[in-house]
Amino acid sequence: MGNLVLVIGTRSWSSWSLRPWLALKQAGLPFEEVRIRLRRPESRTEILAHSPSGKVPVLKDGGLVIWDSLAICEYVAEIACAVPLWPENKGARAVARSACAEMHSGFPALREHLSMDVTQSLPLPELPPEAVADVARVQALWNDCRSRFGAGGPFLFGRWSIADAMYAPVVTRFHTYGVPLDAVSTAYVEAVLALPALQEWVDAAKREA
Amino acid sequence: MGNLVLVIGTRSWSSWSLRPWLALKQAGLPFEEVRIRLRRPESRTEILAHSPSGKVPVLKDGGLVIWDSLAICEYVAEIACAVPLWPENKGARAVARSACAEMHSGFPALREHLSMDVTQSLPLPELPPEAVADVARVQALWNDCRSRFGAGGPFLFGRWSIADAMYAPVVTRFHTYGVPLDAVSTAYVEAVLALPALQEWVDAAKREA
Repeated sequence: MGNLVLVIGTRSWSSWSLRPWLALKQAGLPFEEVRIRLRRPESRTEILAHSPSGKVPVLKDGGLVIWDSLAICEYVAEIACAVPLWPENKGARAVARSACAEMHSGFPALREHLSMDVTQSLPLPELPPEAVADVARVQALWNDCRSRFGAGGPFLFGRWSIADAMYAPVVTRFHTYGVPLDAVSTAYVEAVLALPALQEWVDAAKREA
Repeated sequence: MGNLVLVIGTRSWSSWSLRPWLALKQAGLPFEEVRIRLRRPESRTEILAHSPSGKVPVLKDGGLVIWDSLAICEYVAEIACAVPLWPENKGARAVARSACAEMHSGFPALREHLSMDVTQSLPLPELPPEAVADVARVQALWNDCRSRFGAGGPFLFGRWSIADAMYAPVVTRFHTYGVPLDAVSTAYVEAVLALPALQEWVDAAKREA
């Protein structure tokens, strides 16, 4: 392992950056940060200097460039030998990866209508049916994971895992907009918001803003 | 490992079904197929009977349900002990996962304007700039993988890997619409089209149509 460098976007908004940043923090791995301010004329050029896909986040490990949030989380799980970042049971791990992949390519209405801003408390907008369905699906998924795999702790698979990193920006959205949630989801949101690493991200976002 | 059952959609169009189906075939693992005809009034209800996310593909292994194409491929890589489905080098594997993840959540214009139909040869439509950019990015990515990791075979990482499964529906799109490609990409498309498993999928799609 070389010197890890994580290239992230503006903390308030860059939900994809938060995910692998949390994975690295929870793994206890030291890393440098390079932050690119998003939504500026020069943002795209600055990102392309690091990332072949033109998107953040990117993890660099020596000469190796890993350019997607989920791929970075998988890599962190491989190099974080001391801390398991996936459930150890093969079946639970496959469900965790399903949950992560559903987040990775899904919930477009939730992402559009409840955009992330971790520094804000905002009124809940009127949501279109697709966004309401996304919010319901997220809660169903959280309930399913918590009931089947959550015995060993407060997170989706009990102990903290990459699945919690992938859903952390959904947690902050639900908090920002005060989305009404069922009891299991409410408790899960509280557990994630209480993570010191998440609080560190939010505090840094406020200093940036 | 129990009895593997892969729930797929209509072969002609279901690009996400093709990916894990190829992974299972290339791994040499026996599996049953359940096929759901897409684009019918009853399709969504039929899918929900198998899949909590309401989407195909789904892999069932005994009581375990894995509901996303990439998560299924990861699972197949874990259980296919005899055949490595990821590059064995850790850095190459991280790049392969980046390429897979970029496909998993990306290239929306390519997917919209060059929709998959493996049974057809179709005229190349006029593409908007975003789709042209997607086609260029795919070729840049293929060239990068081939030049850095392709020494041991004709595929993105030399030997066949999950990255080839993830890009197989892009290969068939480029073939269906006769998209002009650079030399490296042309050779790669020919290598994937020559895979017996891919030919088996296309032949079955023609019989279904």
